[in-house]
Amino acid sequence: MSKDKPAIPKGTRDFNPQVVVKRNYIFSTIRKTFEKFGYQPLETPAMENLSVLTGKYGEEGDQLIFKILNSGDYLAKTAVTDFEQGSKSMLRKISEKALRYDLTVPFARFVVMNRNEITFPFKRYQIQPVWRADRPQRGRYREFYQCDADVVGTKSLLCEAEIVLMIDEVLSNLGITDFSIKINHRGILAGIAEAIGQKGREVEICVAIDKLDKIGQEGVNKELSERGVSDDSIAALQPILNLKGDSNTLISSLDNILENSAEGKRGLDEIKEVFKYLSSFQVKNAALNLDIALARGLSYYTGCIFEVKVNNATMGSISGGGRYDNLTGMFGLPDVSGVGFSFGVDRIYDVMEELNLFQASNQTITQLLISNFDKASEEYSLPLLQQFRNAGIATELYPEAAKLKKQMTYADQKKIPFVLLVGSEEMQTGLLQLKNMQTGEQMAVVAEGVIAKLLEI
Amino acid sequence: MSKDKPAIPKGTRDFNPQVVVKRNYIFSTIRKTFEKFGYQPLETPAMENLSVLTGKYGEEGDQLIFKILNSGDYLAKTAVTDFEQGSKSMLRKISEKALRYDLTVPFARFVVMNRNEITFPFKRYQIQPVWRADRPQRGRYREFYQCDADVVGTKSLLCEAEIVLMIDEVLSNLGITDFSIKINHRGILAGIAEAIGQKGREVEICVAIDKLDKIGQEGVNKELSERGVSDDSIAALQPILNLKGDSNTLISSLDNILENSAEGKRGLDEIKEVFKYLSSFQVKNAALNLDIALARGLSYYTGCIFEVKVNNATMGSISGGGRYDNLTGMFGLPDVSGVGFSFGVDRIYDVMEELNLFQASNQTITQLLISNFDKASEEYSLPLLQQFRNAGIATELYPEAAKLKKQMTYADQKKIPFVLLVGSEEMQTGLLQLKNMQTGEQMAVVAEGVIAKLLEI
Repeated sequence: MSKDKPAIPKGTRDFNPQVVVKRNYIFSTIRKTFEKFGYQPLETPAMENLSVLTGKYGEEGDQLIFKILNSGDYLAKTAVTDFEQGSKSMLRKISEKALRYDLTVPFARFVVMNRNEITFPFKRYQIQPVWRADRPQRGRYREFYQCDADVVGTKSLLCEAEIVLMIDEVLSNLGITDFSIKINHRGILAGIAEAIGQKGREVEICVAIDKLDKIGQEGVNKELSERGVSDDSIAALQPILNLKGDSNTLISSLDNILENSAEGKRGLDEIKEVFKYLSSFQVKNAALNLDIALARGLSYYTGCIFEVKVNNATMGSISGGGRYDNLTGMFGLPDVSGVGFSFGVDRIYDVMEELNLFQASNQTITQLLISNFDKASEEYSLPLLQQFRNAGIATELYPEAAKLKKQMTYADQKKIPFVLLVGSEEMQTGLLQLKNMQTGEQMAVVAEGVIAKLLEI
Repeated sequence: MSKDKPAIPKGTRDFNPQVVVKRNYIFSTIRKTFEKFGYQPLETPAMENLSVLTGKYGEEGDQLIFKILNSGDYLAKTAVTDFEQGSKSMLRKISEKALRYDLTVPFARFVVMNRNEITFPFKRYQIQPVWRADRPQRGRYREFYQCDADVVGTKSLLCEAEIVLMIDEVLSNLGITDFSIKINHRGILAGIAEAIGQKGREVEICVAIDKLDKIGQEGVNKELSERGVSDDSIAALQPILNLKGDSNTLISSLDNILENSAEGKRGLDEIKEVFKYLSSFQVKNAALNLDIALARGLSYYTGCIFEVKVNNATMGSISGGGRYDNLTGMFGLPDVSGVGFSFGVDRIYDVMEELNLFQASNQTITQLLISNFDKASEEYSLPLLQQFRNAGIATELYPEAAKLKKQMTYADQKKIPFVLLVGSEEMQTGLLQLKNMQTGEQMAVVAEGVIAKLLEI
C-alpha cells in the first residue's frame, strides 16, 4: 500500500464537497452580477498553442508556462544536436502546446480569430482555471481560477463606472461590506511624471510607486534614484505622493499640478467622468477613492486602473483591473479599446472564512435524510422519497438498513438539516418523526407536513 | 498579420457565449438532479501525477495521456543515453505530471487519499474537462467534459434504481422524452458463459458481444471463433442472444438458462431487485429494458451495467455506467463497492440541437437593452438602468450614442428580447417605448410598466 500511496502534484488542490459548495456560491454570485450587467460567458480551451502564449508575459512568465509534450514519439523529429543544445532549444521540437497562463491572452486571441462574427461592443466574462509553474506557497497555487469580465470595442467610461457597480454588488451580496475601491488613471501617472520633469518615464516611476505599500517612501525613493530619476524630480514627487484628502480635494489639487500635461488632463477628465457617472447610481457599500499611488504592475493598461481591498480582513487586493487600448495588437488587430477586471476567488474565499460569512444555507445540498431501519421501513419510504423530491426537496433515503447512530453521523457529516425517522409506529399512524439536526427538536407530522416545513425554511 | 494569425490546437474548441449558455443549461439541469438525489460536487486538479494515471487505461490509453513537461531546465537530470533510448525511456526523466484522462481514476485516488475523513456511503458528482490525445474527428475532441456521479461504500441496489430515476429526470427536464435505458449484469454474462461451457471466459465473450450492434451476428461469431470459443459453444450462444420479449419474459427464460450458475443467479437476482425498486417509483419517460447483448467494454464493472440511447436521434449512447467492486483497489484500498454513471454532454448537446429542444429562454442573458441616442438620453437612462437591475432584470444601456440601427443589430446578435427607446419625447412624458424584438410590437409604458412586463415573461 505505502508504495502506491497516491498524491497530487504540489501546488494543486482537491476541492472536497464542503469546499466546492462554498466556492460555487461565490462563483454563482459573481456570475449572476456579470450577467445582470449584460456580460456573456466565454470558454476557451485549457491548451493553447505555445506560439500564442510565448512572449506575452515577459521572460519570467514564459518560464512559468506549463508546456505539454507532443503526443506519440515526441523525439521523432529531434537529433542528438537538439538534445545537446539544451532545454530551451529542444523545447521547440518536442512541445507545441501549453496550458493557459491567464484568461486575458486567450480572450484577445478569441477576439482576433472571431472579429468578423463578433458584434462590438463585446462584453464577455470567463471563469476558468489557469496554470502557472510558480513556486507554491501559502495562497499561491499552480492551478487556480480566474474570474474575468471585459468589454472591448468601446471607449465609453460608463463601462468603468459599471465595474465599480459590479464590484459593489458582488461583494455586498457575499456579505462583504467594509471595502474600498481605489481608482487611478495611467494618464495621471504620466502627467505626474511630466510635472516632475520626467516625461515619458512614467513606467519606471509607476513600478517604483507601486511598491509604496510594501517598501515605504524611503524604499521608493531609493529605487527611483537607482532607476536614474534625478534628486530634483524625486523631491518634486514627494508633495504629490503626500497629497491628502477625499477624491474631490485630490482632483482639485491635480487640476493645478497637471495643468501643463495633455496626458495628465486626459486622465483627470476621465476620472471626473467616472465619478460623474457614479453620481447617478446608488452604491451600496463601496467607498471609491482616487489613489495616485495606485499604479498596478501590468504595462498594458492605458486608462483607468482599479484595485479593491477589504478593510477589515488581512488580505491583499481581491479584485483589480483597468483599461487597455491595444490588447489585441499582440495578434495584429490594433486599436481595440477595452476595459476589464478580475475577482480573486481564492482570496475572496479566505476573506469570507476569516469574517465567518458563509451561511449554513450556502453549504447544504441534501435537505432531508430518511432513515432506513429495515426492509419494511425502506419499502414504506420509497414513494415518500419521490414525493419529497418532486416537491423540489433534495432528499436521500439511507441506502441500507443500518444503526441509527451511523445514519445520524452520516447526516451530521453532510450537514443535512433534517432527518425523518420512519419506524413501525410511524408506518402504522402515518405520523412521521421529523428531527431538526441543529436544535435536536422532533415533531410528528404527515408527509405533506414534512414538505410544508422544509419549503418554509 | 497573417504571420501571427492565431489558432487553437486541433481537437479543442472555443465555446462562444451562444454555445456556453446552452451548454450551461444542460450542466445546470444535470447538477440540479444530482443534488436532489444527494450527490455532492467534487473537483480534482487538471494535473495528476503521471504515476497515478499510468497503467490504468491499458497500453493504448497510456499513449493517449497528455504529459506535461517538467518546468525549468527539464533536461538537467538527463544524459545523452536517455535521449538515445528514445521517447518512452526519456519520458520518466522529463515529465512527472499529466492531464486528467477521465474522472474515475482521480475519484478513486481522492477516495483512497481521504478515506479516513470521508463518511461512507460517499455520493459524489464531478463535472470537469478531461484530455485525450486521440485523433480528432467529428464528435471526438481532445478536450471534453465528463459529468460523472458515483456512490461508493454501499452495495444497495437502491443506488442502481436511483440512477435510472436520475437519467429519467435529467433527460425529461431537457425535453428528451423518447429514450431507452438498457440494463444488464456482468453476472448474467458470466452465467451465460458458464451455460455455454465457457466458464470464466466471459470477458472475451463480452468484448465480442459488445460489438453486436456494429458488426452483426456473423461478425461476432467470427470473432468468438478467433478467440478460441468452440463451435458448440457458439451454437449454444445463438438462441440466448436471439431471446426476444420484454424484460419479464427475458428474466423467465434466463431463470432456466442460468439455473446452474451461481454467478448467473446472482446477476439475475440483482436485476430483479432493481426492477422491484423501480416498481415503487413513477418513471416519467424512461423505458428500462434488460438487454443481454449489452456488455460495455470497461473491464472493471462487476454488477449491473447501463446504457442510454435516444430513440429518435442519430446518436450513439448518451449516458452509461455500472457497478464496480474494486475501483480503489488500484491504489491499495480493496473491497469498496460502488456504482456510477456518466452523461455525455457533447452528445446531449447535439441531440438537443437535432431535435430543436433549446428554447429561446435558455439562450437569453440580457433581457433589456436601453438605447442611447445622446448625452441627454444617456443621463436620463442611468437611474432607470439601476432600477431595472435592482428588480432583477438583466439590463444594458448601450454604452455610447450610436445610430439606432447599430444598437438594434447589437440587440439582435445578443438575442436581447426587448429594447427600450428613450428619445426626447419619451423623456418629457415619462412614457417609454418598449419594443418586442421578436414580434416588432412597440408599447408606451412608464418605468414600472417595463418592470412588470419583463417580470411577467
